[in-house]
Amino acid sequence: MALWVLKFGGTSVGDPARIGNVASLIERHRRSGIDLVVVVSAMAGETDRLIALAQTHSSTPDPRELAALLVTGEQASAALLALTLCARGIRACSYTAWQIGLEARGAPDEARVHAIDPTRLQSDLESGIVPIVCGFQGIDAAGDYVTLGRGGSDTTAVALAAALGADECQIYTDVDGVYTADPRVIGAARRHDNLSYSEMLELAGLGAKVLERRSVELAGRHKVPLRVLSTFGGKGSRGTRFTGSPAMVNEDSLCGVTLSQGESEITILGVPEQPALAAILLGPISAAGIEIDLIVQNHARDGRVDLGFTVPQRSLPDTLALVRERAGAIGAEAVISSERIAKLSLVGLGLKSHPELIARLLSTLAAESISVRMMATAEIKVSVTIPEEDGHRALVAVHRALGFEEEARKPVPRKKRGS
Amino acid sequence: MALWVLKFGGTSVGDPARIGNVASLIERHRRSGIDLVVVVSAMAGETDRLIALAQTHSSTPDPRELAALLVTGEQASAALLALTLCARGIRACSYTAWQIGLEARGAPDEARVHAIDPTRLQSDLESGIVPIVCGFQGIDAAGDYVTLGRGGSDTTAVALAAALGADECQIYTDVDGVYTADPRVIGAARRHDNLSYSEMLELAGLGAKVLERRSVELAGRHKVPLRVLSTFGGKGSRGTRFTGSPAMVNEDSLCGVTLSQGESEITILGVPEQPALAAILLGPISAAGIEIDLIVQNHARDGRVDLGFTVPQRSLPDTLALVRERAGAIGAEAVISSERIAKLSLVGLGLKSHPELIARLLSTLAAESISVRMMATAEIKVSVTIPEEDGHRALVAVHRALGFEEEARKPVPRKKRGS
Repeated sequence: MALWVLKFGGTSVGDPARIGNVASLIERHRRSGIDLVVVVSAMAGETDRLIALAQTHSSTPDPRELAALLVTGEQASAALLALTLCARGIRACSYTAWQIGLEARGAPDEARVHAIDPTRLQSDLESGIVPIVCGFQGIDAAGDYVTLGRGGSDTTAVALAAALGADECQIYTDVDGVYTADPRVIGAARRHDNLSYSEMLELAGLGAKVLERRSVELAGRHKVPLRVLSTFGGKGSRGTRFTGSPAMVNEDSLCGVTLSQGESEITILGVPEQPALAAILLGPISAAGIEIDLIVQNHARDGRVDLGFTVPQRSLPDTLALVRERAGAIGAEAVISSERIAKLSLVGLGLKSHPELIARLLSTLAAESISVRMMATAEIKVSVTIPEEDGHRALVAVHRALGFEEEARKPVPRKKRGS
Repeated sequence: MALWVLKFGGTSVGDPARIGNVASLIERHRRSGIDLVVVVSAMAGETDRLIALAQTHSSTPDPRELAALLVTGEQASAALLALTLCARGIRACSYTAWQIGLEARGAPDEARVHAIDPTRLQSDLESGIVPIVCGFQGIDAAGDYVTLGRGGSDTTAVALAAALGADECQIYTDVDGVYTADPRVIGAARRHDNLSYSEMLELAGLGAKVLERRSVELAGRHKVPLRVLSTFGGKGSRGTRFTGSPAMVNEDSLCGVTLSQGESEITILGVPEQPALAAILLGPISAAGIEIDLIVQNHARDGRVDLGFTVPQRSLPDTLALVRERAGAIGAEAVISSERIAKLSLVGLGLKSHPELIARLLSTLAAESISVRMMATAEIKVSVTIPEEDGHRALVAVHRALGFEEEARKPVPRKKRGS
């Protein structure tokens, strides 16, 4: 008999009607004879409400106690879903992390799943009971509650699927899969039926916030087949499936274009070449808790290099102060910055073998008179920074020029069309 | 060093200002060098909110899941109090029932404390940490959450005090002790400094709802000194202390008058005497979940007895139906009932040795032209039923006539005054 782990996010369990909707979906799967383990988040808004409540008592709440407070959100939604199922005659039991031995290690607000004891869940499954597991929470070595950080319930679901050897882990959310571009921005964006873990990782890192990086990494490591689909979609939608299996993924294709806005760019010009230059310059910025994204260092010319990188716009003043402190000491000629830039990225396994796609990207932007400031390439993605105001126009043009409107997964090489 | 267990009810932790107030009280005791373990209820209204939420999903929520939902209320208030204390530099840790091995047995909505593992709490106390324990919850043999029923947090506090050998268990509530009569009704009522467990048990059973019966019984059994006092009172108030020690309690005294309204009375007349009559008649009523209170059976006359008892007014129609079903079979002559009666009770160890106090009670009521319908006496209390509309007048008259206005604990015998 097939075993699926289903995960429902906060909007899916946001009110009694929606919890009823989730119960119906579970009922349908049970009638089809599928064994289920369900993971739930707190009801939409509940975690934020609890954080605000904690902050009325302390501006920097004690991390242990904040975690102890936050886990009540998932406990409540798990119990509510379980009692809704019980009322419909479906045997269900809610479980906290300690009841299923879900051990986690690390900071109380960003712990990682360490171990799960599947005994009780397996015995429930054998008895036809649907276990409803609280997402986002774990127990540390001292026996205290910790939380798994943003997207933590997805991680709970993937970890359970791995521990139980589930046939599939289904993440129900408010979108029905992963698209070639953000469908709220690009109406012509198309949904992928299949993606590889590594493509999803790049997309997740680039602002396609369907799944958090950690849960995709975990799925890839444990080879858990992962599917993203909509709670509110029709019965027909199959969402997007992630797998590491080469048979499922076309190595010769692109999977999407993403746009990330709200960034700033800093470039340090003419720094005498020296070992570990990036570490000397970027270490203190990272240590100050500033998220550095794209980093570009050119080849040395006359013994000097330029080093550019992006940070969130809100971090620009602090970053500039830190950079200027060090610029003299390392002999930099100048520091320049742009406050408002956007980052456009093209992702796909096909990029590895088809460098002409990068040329297509650049010529499309040139035809739109959009200036590219920095460019960086990785195994399966290429990113460029452009002025923020050109972001949306660039996304539309690149999405069209690279043929994504025709089919979700674009095979390459293809004939060049138009400009 | 002294060790106290403090328990704060829902109104004491009802909002951030009140939680701050509780934190200040804890801070004061810690500064005086007292070791503390704290038990909290859910914030006022939270348990009712959660029950209502459960009922939007199921009119008869699954008991296991309802318990799992309700325990989140205490978890939230415990974490909030702990992080408030941490923010003030007082080391505090919140604990759920499973973290301190608080095992309970029985129905998920009315379990009884079975065992506590004091190891972690003791180690906290040695390190100067204030443990904040979630009241009302326990873990059953299967490792599931159960709740301890109404007043369950008081039971948690008493059980902890017993397990830790605490010097005192202090129950903070919204009244500052136990009075000779309800002080909201009788302005001249006076507070007791000391009461025996058995007196408190009778008072609790008679509508003086300061403490639930179960926690007083537990305190008596484990000889835990118990004190009731107000969270909102001044620093000077010492509340009322309960103890089993004879030195503290005057055997020759009365401790209070209580009035319980909203009751109905049923009398079955002329039943041929037979073994276990009460069980035959009252068993089915009890089995139907109806709370039977005062039971009076007179001595047989001509081989026939009358059996009277009281039930809550809302249960009268169901009770009458059950009684009439059986009245014929047991040969009863008639069934009569009064819908609206009140029960007035006089409580005190002094009643045992001073039957003249009962005469004083009856003559006071007669002087007020209040008719007594049934009367029952126990070791340390006497109860009469009277018409509901005379209840308040009877309470005032008896409280005054028995001398309670002069001092909280009334020594007897005394001179008869007035009427």
